[in-house]
Amino acid sequence: MHIEKTSDPKTLQLPAGFRAAGISAGIKKSGVKDMALIVSDVEAVMAGTFTTNQVCAAPVKLCRKHLEGRKGRAIIVNSGVANACTGPEGMKAAQDMAAQTASLLNVPETQVFVCSTGTIGKQLPMDVIGSGIQKIVPAVTVEGVHDAVEAIMTTDTRPKHCTLRIEVDGKPVTVMGMAKGAGMIEPGMATMLSFILTDAAVEADALQACLLAAVKKSFNLVSVDGDRSTNDTVLCMAGGAAGNKPLSPAHRDWKVFSDALYRVAFDLAMKIIGDGEGARKVVRIEVKGALNDAEADIAARAVANSMLVKTSWVKDSPNWGRVMDALGYSRAKVDETLVDIDYDEHPAVRGGMASGSSVAELKKIVARECFVIKIDLHLGNGRAEVYSCDCTEEYVRINW
Amino acid sequence: MHIEKTSDPKTLQLPAGFRAAGISAGIKKSGVKDMALIVSDVEAVMAGTFTTNQVCAAPVKLCRKHLEGRKGRAIIVNSGVANACTGPEGMKAAQDMAAQTASLLNVPETQVFVCSTGTIGKQLPMDVIGSGIQKIVPAVTVEGVHDAVEAIMTTDTRPKHCTLRIEVDGKPVTVMGMAKGAGMIEPGMATMLSFILTDAAVEADALQACLLAAVKKSFNLVSVDGDRSTNDTVLCMAGGAAGNKPLSPAHRDWKVFSDALYRVAFDLAMKIIGDGEGARKVVRIEVKGALNDAEADIAARAVANSMLVKTSWVKDSPNWGRVMDALGYSRAKVDETLVDIDYDEHPAVRGGMASGSSVAELKKIVARECFVIKIDLHLGNGRAEVYSCDCTEEYVRINW
Repeated sequence: MHIEKTSDPKTLQLPAGFRAAGISAGIKKSGVKDMALIVSDVEAVMAGTFTTNQVCAAPVKLCRKHLEGRKGRAIIVNSGVANACTGPEGMKAAQDMAAQTASLLNVPETQVFVCSTGTIGKQLPMDVIGSGIQKIVPAVTVEGVHDAVEAIMTTDTRPKHCTLRIEVDGKPVTVMGMAKGAGMIEPGMATMLSFILTDAAVEADALQACLLAAVKKSFNLVSVDGDRSTNDTVLCMAGGAAGNKPLSPAHRDWKVFSDALYRVAFDLAMKIIGDGEGARKVVRIEVKGALNDAEADIAARAVANSMLVKTSWVKDSPNWGRVMDALGYSRAKVDETLVDIDYDEHPAVRGGMASGSSVAELKKIVARECFVIKIDLHLGNGRAEVYSCDCTEEYVRINW
Repeated sequence: MHIEKTSDPKTLQLPAGFRAAGISAGIKKSGVKDMALIVSDVEAVMAGTFTTNQVCAAPVKLCRKHLEGRKGRAIIVNSGVANACTGPEGMKAAQDMAAQTASLLNVPETQVFVCSTGTIGKQLPMDVIGSGIQKIVPAVTVEGVHDAVEAIMTTDTRPKHCTLRIEVDGKPVTVMGMAKGAGMIEPGMATMLSFILTDAAVEADALQACLLAAVKKSFNLVSVDGDRSTNDTVLCMAGGAAGNKPLSPAHRDWKVFSDALYRVAFDLAMKIIGDGEGARKVVRIEVKGALNDAEADIAARAVANSMLVKTSWVKDSPNWGRVMDALGYSRAKVDETLVDIDYDEHPAVRGGMASGSSVAELKKIVARECFVIKIDLHLGNGRAEVYSCDCTEEYVRINW
């Protein structure tokens, strides 16, 4: 398995009809960029999906409401403060962020989407946010997207983006996405923050369905620490500047488009897990032979989130006993005498016992930057995969 | 909250009618003690409870079988190799351990209980085990219990034991327990290994019921890392040398005895969490106001096992936002606007938002060696408590 962890800045490009900016508004004391704005020149079709956490941030609640109209002109984002667990004052702050941005852009307030990421429980400094909005609205440009991808970062060590070019109705279409996220990552329906933009024209219901399908097989497959955030948000804007006939499943290029959207989402999800707090490795856990897909997912997540499995990878230990232990305590049905486990191309476990592969061979695989643990439960046809990362001392240091 | 983390060796004493030993058999290359034996002079009434992990070690399977007779004479234990995921060869090894011990003690094989703890997936070195058994059987003495409590340790930093003295029928009765466990700790029905011995005479069904009740409110309430082991075992032997009328719920001193057994189990559980791998703090998570007790337990465990919550304690951060996040993604019903959280005597959250307590005040509490996080969900009458510990860099280093 190989994963491109780093985003090449030369490939980053906004689809036609979009502008963006990223600035230091002063929310973070360090002075790094902490506010981003994405603007569509025209009313874009919007899709979105959000955290399934019962405790959810004010901007998530506002986005859910604004998404009812399925139309969007702008996404205003701040990092540093999550605006979660902030009650009515926090809700008012999110609404004010939308209203102030809408007023300066001269667009309807319900077409401005608000995202926040950072510390939970603090109120947004609205004076700082207000002057930031004053500063960022006139700053949006096509090149400003380079600043925007930086401004949404928190503990991320690098910006995460992906730009794909396809053809729809013979016209060039761009699908571009950006994301942030490194900790508190086990997305339920979305991950921390991700924005996917396209100049394709797409019907609203089709875009929403397409986004949900893509997110299910990308962001929802990664887990850094098993902690599902209060702020997870994926928003998708389709501006239509490409001039194609609006896409829907009936369109002959639908598959090309939905594949592109999935590939962008998957690429961003891999960049998130590849930049997991303190992590140095990406490990795909594949489970097959479970009673059904849901049980396969439960088994894969038990392995992916086991502290003992994740710490064993740090020093390249092929400690498959811990993988067996995690499978056994998962709520998925497991018969230990049937379990086979491979590490990349090498068998590690056959029938629940050591396969005879040498520890040295397995150690070489676990030393790789990316590898796959393939588990066959031999009970049924259920399959699932989840992407995890190692848990290093650095993870502890980042979060204490 | 205050917890006695260390066991005073001066208090350690076997009940009448028991002998024990601990030796270095050579299973661990370091040469430290790695084999323990506990012997009852007479046929003791046995009770036991074991891991709920579907992947379970050969000695656990053997103990379950031997427990059917409810009679025991000896417990033979090795550390270093868990004899889990070892198939028929491992089962044969566990049987041989019982048979060899039984033969030298001249007792029925089914009255010898076998426990192993250590690395999963390796076969026991039966030549080393065999000569260890030859050496340990003649070595049992009353004082040998001091060696036995050391010999069952793996990553434990200190031996764990507790001795209580009560009166039953006016006769002195001793209830003594020992335990090992520091990692792979979120017991389902028991924790790694614990042996509780008493010279009281107790009826078999009463002893089993009493043990299950004690374990539920002690070992089952602690979680070091959310990883449930393949080898968890609690065994209880009641030898009867005290000469009391056999205890059962009908006996007037039943409450005194069952309380003592619970207190020993609870003391050992606290010593396990207090010696959690790399941990420096013990934190009790109390949840009340959940829809029911099961939901309270789910909510408390989500907080207790959150990597972000556990790492935040390392540097004394009162990061209640992460507690809110964990409550929100737990499968327990939560309405964030109703949640109150206190840290010991200080309110941290009221109605899902900051209570106004200063961060400095809360930080002082989190700096304590032991503290309580009290959560009220205000939805119903469900209550639960779980004991957790901080997750330090040392935890990662111990397990890589």
